[in-house]
Order: sequence, then structure tokens, then C-alpha cells
Amino acid sequence: MTTIAFIGLGIMGAPMAANLSSSGFDVVGYNRSAPAVERLVAAGGRAATSVADAVTGADIVATMLPDTPDVLAVITDGDGVFANARPGALVIDFSTIKPQASARLAAEGKAAGFRVLDAPVSGGEQGAVEGTLSVMVGGADQDFLAAGEVFDAVGRTIVHVGHAGSGQTVKAANQLIVAGTLALLAEALVFLEAHGVDTEAAVRVLGGGLAGSTVLERKAGQMLSRSYKPGFRVGLHHKDMGIVTDAARNAGVAIPLGSLAAQLLGSLDARGDGSLDHSALFGLVEELSGRSEAKTA
Amino acid sequence: MTTIAFIGLGIMGAPMAANLSSSGFDVVGYNRSAPAVERLVAAGGRAATSVADAVTGADIVATMLPDTPDVLAVITDGDGVFANARPGALVIDFSTIKPQASARLAAEGKAAGFRVLDAPVSGGEQGAVEGTLSVMVGGADQDFLAAGEVFDAVGRTIVHVGHAGSGQTVKAANQLIVAGTLALLAEALVFLEAHGVDTEAAVRVLGGGLAGSTVLERKAGQMLSRSYKPGFRVGLHHKDMGIVTDAARNAGVAIPLGSLAAQLLGSLDARGDGSLDHSALFGLVEELSGRSEAKTA
Amino acid sequence: MTTIAFIGLGIMGAPMAANLSSSGFDVVGYNRSAPAVERLVAAGGRAATSVADAVTGADIVATMLPDTPDVLAVITDGDGVFANARPGALVIDFSTIKPQASARLAAEGKAAGFRVLDAPVSGGEQGAVEGTLSVMVGGADQDFLAAGEVFDAVGRTIVHVGHAGSGQTVKAANQLIVAGTLALLAEALVFLEAHGVDTEAAVRVLGGGLAGSTVLERKAGQMLSRSYKPGFRVGLHHKDMGIVTDAARNAGVAIPLGSLAAQLLGSLDARGDGSLDHSALFGLVEELSGRSEAKTA
Amino acid sequence: MTTIAFIGLGIMGAPMAANLSSSGFDVVGYNRSAPAVERLVAAGGRAATSVADAVTGADIVATMLPDTPDVLAVITDGDGVFANARPGALVIDFSTIKPQASARLAAEGKAAGFRVLDAPVSGGEQGAVEGTLSVMVGGADQDFLAAGEVFDAVGRTIVHVGHAGSGQTVKAANQLIVAGTLALLAEALVFLEAHGVDTEAAVRVLGGGLAGSTVLERKAGQMLSRSYKPGFRVGLHHKDMGIVTDAARNAGVAIPLGSLAAQLLGSLDARGDGSLDHSALFGLVEELSGRSEAKTA
Repeated sequence: MTTIAFIGLGIMGAPMAANLSSSGFDVVGYNRSAPAVERLVAAGGRAATSVADAVTGADIVATMLPDTPDVLAVITDGDGVFANARPGALVIDFSTIKPQASARLAAEGKAAGFRVLDAPVSGGEQGAVEGTLSVMVGGADQDFLAAGEVFDAVGRTIVHVGHAGSGQTVKAANQLIVAGTLALLAEALVFLEAHGVDTEAAVRVLGGGLAGSTVLERKAGQMLSRSYKPGFRVGLHHKDMGIVTDAARNAGVAIPLGSLAAQLLGSLDARGDGSLDHSALFGLVEELSGRSEAKTA
Repeated sequence: MTTIAFIGLGIMGAPMAANLSSSGFDVVGYNRSAPAVERLVAAGGRAATSVADAVTGADIVATMLPDTPDVLAVITDGDGVFANARPGALVIDFSTIKPQASARLAAEGKAAGFRVLDAPVSGGEQGAVEGTLSVMVGGADQDFLAAGEVFDAVGRTIVHVGHAGSGQTVKAANQLIVAGTLALLAEALVFLEAHGVDTEAAVRVLGGGLAGSTVLERKAGQMLSRSYKPGFRVGLHHKDMGIVTDAARNAGVAIPLGSLAAQLLGSLDARGDGSLDHSALFGLVEELSGRSEAKTA
Repeated sequence: MTTIAFIGLGIMGAPMAANLSSSGFDVVGYNRSAPAVERLVAAGGRAATSVADAVTGADIVATMLPDTPDVLAVITDGDGVFANARPGALVIDFSTIKPQASARLAAEGKAAGFRVLDAPVSGGEQGAVEGTLSVMVGGADQDFLAAGEVFDAVGRTIVHVGHAGSGQTVKAANQLIVAGTLALLAEALVFLEAHGVDTEAAVRVLGGGLAGSTVLERKAGQMLSRSYKPGFRVGLHHKDMGIVTDAARNAGVAIPLGSLAAQLLGSLDARGDGSLDHSALFGLVEELSGRSEAKTA
Repeated sequence: MTTIAFIGLGIMGAPMAANLSSSGFDVVGYNRSAPAVERLVAAGGRAATSVADAVTGADIVATMLPDTPDVLAVITDGDGVFANARPGALVIDFSTIKPQASARLAAEGKAAGFRVLDAPVSGGEQGAVEGTLSVMVGGADQDFLAAGEVFDAVGRTIVHVGHAGSGQTVKAANQLIVAGTLALLAEALVFLEAHGVDTEAAVRVLGGGLAGSTVLERKAGQMLSRSYKPGFRVGLHHKDMGIVTDAARNAGVAIPLGSLAAQLLGSLDARGDGSLDHSALFGLVEELSGRSEAKTA
């Protein structure tokens, strides 16, 4: 039985760890807050009391953490993964962080005898629960192959997209597209409501043509009902757009719509709506159109 | 056998008329340039020598024309539809024009004893050829029901979205979303190429998550191969974005991303790329990123 | 003594007419609401009871009206200027309207024996009161020369910029620059306040360098004190940006920043802030930055 | 006689050092490339062979360097300012760098017994040559007062805007406004040319009203003549916009127009126009409007 240490049991990490457990992995979980660890135990996993405790003896180490500094700390600090895991262990970081940071972790890990993959995911809480995430993987071919059963346990669309860091690059592109598509959908739906059109019928016909998208399928209803329960939080998407705009600037790539979408998400976050679902962009467009009395919460 | 006059046999109108013919309608076609009419005859239709000639005696009149003034002229001029068609005839305008113009035509038509529907479509040339268009219909319930067989012959997703003009409003929302999604995809793909990622693999995994869209499915390949054969021309989409921005302004709706996408399409058009497919937005983003030696043609 | 009919005695027209009166013109004023006419009489002018009454016998006719349809009605309707003014009269339209409309009025006026100038102004209420407006004039050379004393009475910077309609084109460019500069100043000031900088000192030093502008001089204080008393109303600037975006679209000119500034002004207007000074853009940027509890009114 | 070490004798630093010399300071200059040092000697200064050589014994140390890492290296490295300058020396950094970096240098300098001011400037090469720069100063009151004669030798508008780092914050706001104003002016001038207006007359009248700005005065001519000789280089302004967008993101401030202007400057830079004057934004808008055959160089 393969032992996998799972660090970070939040809204995404918890169901992913549970799916690994029910797929036959021996999952040892660690999270800063204890209740999350207890829930993993209830789901068939084992509890660890620290990162070091979790990774000691594990064949595979998985991390799912909020931001670049969290991942760097957990993996490279003195009491972290590289310092305590078994030489040769496979380290899979599911977090969404800066591509350069992933590339650096891969290089440092290699020097220390580890195999490191960056494997950020898309699909949200629902995808994590159902085990239907899309996983975009950067790293060496043989490491990607070695991680096959892990990926199969958490995702449905699993693609190796290139060298170390490439998974993050693709995830950044994903977040760029999703942010922009949400903003466009919000604009379109406010436009339709302002004209007194049957929005439910409109969403149906829009979905059947070139305007169709997963965002339209999954988020139009949430927008029209103004129920911005996450899902994927504005604050995290705002953080991701910082990664996108930095990476685009460094690469000299023009992202006019992407940077404008980043402004709108940043605005939502600054207004205190960081904990809402990113479909709350609808509320912002409503306010910008004078069609909302109340705050978007 | 129901006789349907079809005015406007262009890139979209021609296959729609042919599909109506093969669905059992008696189709009488008219187009300003003769070869288009001859092609309809080859496909089983009949030729008319003028709008008046086409609509005289027809049960149904269908129009598929480039812009608002064309439709107004064909339908309301002295030698046009209202002046020559049979009283009570059903007039279905498939063109994409200003919502107010459609509402006005419906009112004038009603006063003159006609039943008028606005029924713009989405799905492009491919959808027109395959008879799988999305049709968004504005007008009275009973007129929508009466047109059922016509819509079934040309489309797959057929939705009645509200009062006269509503079809155009939904089409405008469609064009807003499509323009923006194309721009976002272009930004994302240039971003991926700039980072040396395997773009084909990336497109696959993006399609499996929340970034998935019909635009991604149908246009990513065209962008990556820089083959901007239409499809749907930049010039027409630029025209449509004029309708969108006007209607949004009149309704007081904020469309920050939509108006920026309109700027990019307008730029392509101004540079002389109006006859390319709208996926040529990729070429524009490439140039803005210093990644293209040549013009986007 | 030269008699000048002045149609439109609003926030701008009233002080302009008063300045003409005190410069020695015999001013006959008309306005739809009577109190404005009475105020002109108190300032030394004469009252007219209709457009026809005002223009009959006048040497010069001046108009200062809100929007294109108002100007077209007052000048071309059956009871309007062309129908009632003395043949050969000089018609000076100070309103800000569509360039094409001005060009059309000039052509129609010429056919009817009138000399027509488009002469939109910049400088706001303060400039109108002080007689220091900038006047941008389109039309024939000799007509521009003939209007010299009129322009001197209301403005300080008076420039003939080209053929009929050119005054409006330059005014459109003016409104584009002003809207964008206001938005940029709002962004910069919110940025400075968020960083705890001494904004008064900052405004002083910004004004001494390449960031200096008339907008900075005149509007920074109004922004920082959140007192959006017009001045120039959001609703009118929003109207003007419609002219700008239309004209840019027709000419195939890219105005990415201008169209985004138009979105922000449109948003203010849609939210019910149309009667505030356009410096209220500061309030909108504050809200977008989560730095404002209350509505911007 | 006060001895001032001047590190960084580029397009801005050279004339600033020369002005200090002719104002009676004993200026010891250092630059990585020797000819710049020789030119200073010709202007009355003395040559140093290294940073350490320059600062040893100086009363005041001035730095004028391209970017944050350059300043950090020159000031904090083992062979740099803090390691070699006289305890108590006044360190004035004229460079434009990240506000946080300036705040950190001030704190580290204080700990090491130095008095540190951030004093970025505005006004371009012309302002540096004429000694008419605007200087925005962050730091302690008494240090600002102590630096008075230095600032008077290089600038005209000298303002103390707050605590350490505030100079950089104000400079960031300055660059935001300038970038956006340049873009707006470019859009307006292309718009005017496209309409066949007399642009020279138009620039005159625009300057007299609310659209007037220092950018209009100094850059319109350069734009209309397409001579993009710096002046202030696109590459540096692009670098500065990275500072602006980062600082705005960190502070939660919405800068929709600023970030779009940053995209345009980034695009110019990516296309290889980094060494042109930032007025080259005109060339980019021309291309986006299909009005330019050639590249903007």
C-alpha cells in the first residue's frame, strides 16, 4: 500500500485527500487547524501532528496550499518536506503558485534527491469532491507517469503540459480565461436583464452556440440568483491574477482584457467581498450599471 | 407545400436556404449577385429576379442580410417585402441588426398585416451548413410556434427569448461574449507560447475545466495555426460590436471588457483585416506582444 | 449696434449671453424656462417669447443647447432659425454635438442662404462667467473672421480649426482627453491617500512636472474634498463621450483609454450621479477601491 | 565646500551632477562606463574609480540608477555606500524604485547611522539639464531641510511629501498620470488626423482649456512629427509602471486606466521600441488605427 502525505486540507485539499483514501492510498494528513485533520480521519485517513510527522516515511508527498510563500515554507523550511521526507520521494504540489517558484522548487528538490511535479488543478470544490478535476502537470516524463494513480484518484482530465513550472503557466492561463469569461458573462446577463429579456431562455440559447462555456453552464444561475456562496473565492482568484499579470509582464505578453478582469476582481476584493464566489463579478457589474441597491454580499 | 422566399444568399444565407429546400420547403431565392441564386437552384430551389418577385405569393419571407440599413431597405422600401408580400405572411429576419430596428419592423409589419419575428442566429458558417445553428427569437408566441418547421430546418437550439427585438438583444449579448472570449483565448495562447508550454496539451486540459468553451474547442487550433480563413469575419463582428456598445450605452449597462474587446476588433478592421476570421485577434495580441514579424493576414 | 439672438440660457449660455450684452451687443434671449430669460433681462438683454421671435431681425444667431436633437430642432424645424432668421444671418452654434450634424447644418444653412459656424467651447461654467472660454471653430474663413467680436466677448483662446464640423471634432478630442485625465487623477489621488502620503504636497509637486495639467490644478481639490458641485455635469460628459466613441468608430480610430473612461462616466451616470461634477469619478474610483462607505453623492 | 558623491551619470544623472558642480558643490562622480565620468570631469567634477572610492569622505551621497536592484546593490552591498561612506552622511536616492525598497533602505541606513531620503524626480532630460526638475521627497523633516541646497541645484519644484518611501509613491502616481495622459493625447491626435482637422490649431486650443497639460505642451509636437528621440525611454516607463501596478495591487487601489496604459507601454517595449521616447505611444495608436505603414521606430 502506497503511503501519501497530504499537507493542506482546506476546501480543495480535504476532498482530494478523501478521494485518495477511498482509492486505496494510505493517506496521512496534516493541516494547521485540527478539525480538518479529524475529518480526514473520519474519511479513512490518518492524522499527523506536523509536516515533518506527515512526510516521514511517505512514498509520495502532496501539498495543496493557498499561496507561493506557504508552499515555499512547507517544502523548503528546516522542519519541512525536503528536510524530512524519504530520499527519492515524489513531491506533487497541487497549489496554484508562481511558475518561477515551481521551477525553483523542482531544481532544489532534484539537487536534494526528490522528484517534484507542479500539478495545479481546475474544477473547483465540486470537481474536488467528485474527483473530476482537471490537472495540469509540469515536470519530467517519468515522474508524471509515476504519479498516474494519484492523479486518477483526484481528476478526470490529466495532462502533462511541459517542463517544471509549466503546470503553473497553464493554470495561470486558465485563471486568466476564467476571470475574463466570468466578467463577460456578468456584463451580458446585466445587459439582458436591463432589456427585459427572458434570461433563462437566453442562457439556454447562448449555451448552444459559440458563446457556450463551462462558466456559462455553471455560473449563470448563481449570478442570476445573486447567491455568491463559494465555490472559488474572489480573494484566491485575485491572488491568482497577480501571478498572471506578473508572469505576462515578465514574458512581454499583452493581456489587455486579462488585466482589466484583474482590476475588477481586485476591486471586489478591496471592497470586502474576498470571501464570496468569483461569480460575484455579476454584483459588481450590476452596481456599475446602477442596478443594485445593496452591497454585493 | 409551403413556399418560402429567401432574401440574402451569402455565406450564411446560402446554406440555410439549401437546408430549407432539402427539408421540403419550396424555396424561392433572391440575391443581388446572380451566381448565388444559381447555386440555390442547383441545390433544389427556385430563382427570383428581385425582392418583389421572390416574395409575391410566398407564405413565409426569410431575410439574411449584412446590416440594419440593408434589412430596412429590403423590408420597408417601396419595392420591398411589406409592399409586395401576401397579407398575413410570416416575415422572419435572421440578420443581426439593432434591437430597436427589429422592434420597429415588428410594429410597422403588424400595422401592415404581417407577422414579424427577429431570429438572429449563432454558430457560424459551419452551423449554417450543418443545420445546427442556435436561433434566438423575438416576437409573439403564436408566430414563434408557426415558424417551428422553418427553425427546425436550419437550427438545433431554438429558443423564444421574449418580445420583438429580444432576439437581437440576445444576439448582441452573444456577440459580446464571443468577442471577449476570443480575445481572452488569444491572450492565453500567446502567454502559453511565450513560456514554451506544449500548447496542444494545454488546450486539452483547459477545455476540461472551468476555462472550457466552444470558442476554445473551435478556435484554438485556428489561432495556433495562424489560418484565419472565415468562418465569421472581423468586419461583421466589428459591426455587431457597434450594436452591442450602442445598446449597452442606451440601457446604462457597464461593459468594460466588452468595450475593450470591441476596440480590439475595431483595430483589426481598421488595419485592413476585416475579411479575416475573428480568430485573427490572436494575430493582434501576438503583435502587441512583439511576437509577430508579419502582418496578421 | 449688432443684434444677436441667443437661444439656450442654461448654465453655460446664460453667462455667455450676459458677457455679450456687457460687450455692447444687443442680445435677445430665448429659453424654454422663463426665469432664465428674466435673468438675462436683468443683465441688460432683451426677452424673446420663442425661437422665431428671438431670431427675427437678428444679425447673428447663437445657440447653446444640450444635445444634437435639440440643436437640429431649434435650427431646422418649421418654427426655427432657418425658417425665421434674416437671409445672410450668421449662425453660431456653441453646443457640443455630433460632427456630422454640424457639417450637415452648415450645408443646409448654406443652401438656405445662411453662414454657419460650429463653435463648441471648453472651460466650464467658470470660463463662461469670466469670458475666458476656449472656442474651437469649424467653418469658412470669412465667417470665422466675421464672428470675431462675438468670440472675443465669450472666450480667450479662439482658434479656427478647419472646415465645418471640425470644431466639434476638436471638442470631441477635448472631452476624450478631459474624461481620461480626470479618471487618471482620481486613480492617482486614491492611490496616494491609500499610502498615507501628504496629498496636498503631492498635488503641488505633480503639478510642477510632466504630470501637470489644468485638470490637476482645477479638480484635485474638489476631488479631495469630495464636493462634486458642478462645474460640468457627469450626464453631459457622458453624452459627449457617446459622440466621441461614435466618431472614433466611424473613423476607425482606436481609443482604448478613451472608451474605458467613457465606461466609467457611463457608470456614474447609470448610478444616478449624472448631476454631479465630473470630478465625481474620484468617488467611483474610491468605491472600486473599497475606500468609501457611502454613495458618491 | 561640501563634497557630494554622485553615483550614476546617465541621461539624467550627468546633467544633475554637472548642475551640482556649477552650483558650488565638490562633485565626485562614478559611473560604470568611463566616458560618462570623463564628461563630468570636463564639467568641473572629479572622477572616482568605484562606488567606494566616490563615497569615501563625502558629506553627501547621491544616486541616480535605473532600477530597484541597482540601487539596492550600490547602497547595501559590501563594496557599496553603507559600507564605505562616512557615518552620518546624508544619502539621497534620486532613482525611481519600489516604495517598499526605499522604506527599507531608510530603515537599514538609520540603523547604520545614515540619514536617507528618497527623492525621485520628474521633468525628463530637459528638466535635468535646465535644473528645473520636480523633486518629490520622502524622509525625515530635518534631513529634507539639510538637503535643501542639493535640491535647489537640480530642481525647481521641491516638495517634502511624507515619510520614507513617500517620494517613490508620489513618483509612481506621477508615472501613472503621465503614461495615461500620453496615451490619451495619442488617441486624441490620431482621432484629429483621421478627421482632417488642422492639428496644430487644435493643439493650441486644447491647451487653452481643461484639456491642457504639460504632456500636451511638450509631447504633441514630437508625436505629430513622429520623432521619438528620448527624452524618457519607453523601457524605463514600462519598468515604472510595474512599480505602479504592484503598489496599487498591494494597496487595493483600482487603476483601470493606469493598468491599460501599462499594457500599451508594455506592448511598445515588447515590440522592441523600449529605447524610443514614451511619446511613441502615438505610433502604437496609429498602428491600432491602421494608419501607419511602417513600424513605430
